[in-house]
Amino acid sequence: MSRQRFTMRPIGVVRSPYRDRDDIPHGLGARHRAEGVLDILPEYAAGLADIEGFSHLFVLWLFHRSPRTSLVSHPPSDDRPHGVFATRSPSRPNRIGLTLVELLRRDGNRLEVRGVDMLDESPILDIKPVLSSVPDGELRRGWLADAEARGRGPNGSG
Amino acid sequence: MSRQRFTMRPIGVVRSPYRDRDDIPHGLGARHRAEGVLDILPEYAAGLADIEGFSHLFVLWLFHRSPRTSLVSHPPSDDRPHGVFATRSPSRPNRIGLTLVELLRRDGNRLEVRGVDMLDESPILDIKPVLSSVPDGELRRGWLADAEARGRGPNGSG
Repeated sequence: MSRQRFTMRPIGVVRSPYRDRDDIPHGLGARHRAEGVLDILPEYAAGLADIEGFSHLFVLWLFHRSPRTSLVSHPPSDDRPHGVFATRSPSRPNRIGLTLVELLRRDGNRLEVRGVDMLDESPILDIKPVLSSVPDGELRRGWLADAEARGRGPNGSG
Repeated sequence: MSRQRFTMRPIGVVRSPYRDRDDIPHGLGARHRAEGVLDILPEYAAGLADIEGFSHLFVLWLFHRSPRTSLVSHPPSDDRPHGVFATRSPSRPNRIGLTLVELLRRDGNRLEVRGVDMLDESPILDIKPVLSSVPDGELRRGWLADAEARGRGPNGSG
């Protein structure tokens, strides 16, 4: 099983105001309200039919400029290291990012969205509608809640 | 951009009670309460440090037995076709599945979870903590809400 390989190809690209990682809000109380565009390649545009009825979308994308992979992450929101699967760090195996965005408008194969936290030109792998969610009161947020209680904040995208 | 390729390798495998796609609850009001295990390969176990503090996880995995890709989906929850990115269909470009599970217990490199809707042996690509969510009252669910109003139900995993 561990020898398996799977090949992915982008279905489009993110248009974002963020050119460098330092441009992206990080750390305590960071909010992602930036608007951007999911620019889907024309050959995948048929897959967008009826998407405009959904208010929120999951975007699966690639940390294409993340230089390395590590199993231990030092998120900006804490002064202690954590396992990478307990964080949203870009330096993760397979380097897949997951962002929940609000769909503002569709213009053909371009989806205008709010809530981007990706770098400009990030390759998009998939888009899925958000169908339900966990009530905030039922979420337990481990080390992140501890870090917030100590006065630091949530780490960035992923 | 469209010529880019990215190679992924599994970080582990899902242990699920579902051996065939027909075993997985689909359609009107389907609920995913089944328990299963995220069996992480030993070489990635260090990435799980501190994950036990989180109540809910996103699992990114592969529809490894999905035979084909289509841009148009005919979900079991509706009698009308929809664009694949407006559904959770397995027959999607890049065939990545996304499932939100509840973390019950960690035992070394095995995560016992509730809410699996994957086939047994599905390869896992990534795990991320759930940090926040959209209040249900703010979610607009497009064709799915329409189908429910007409007496059919939500489509399956993805």
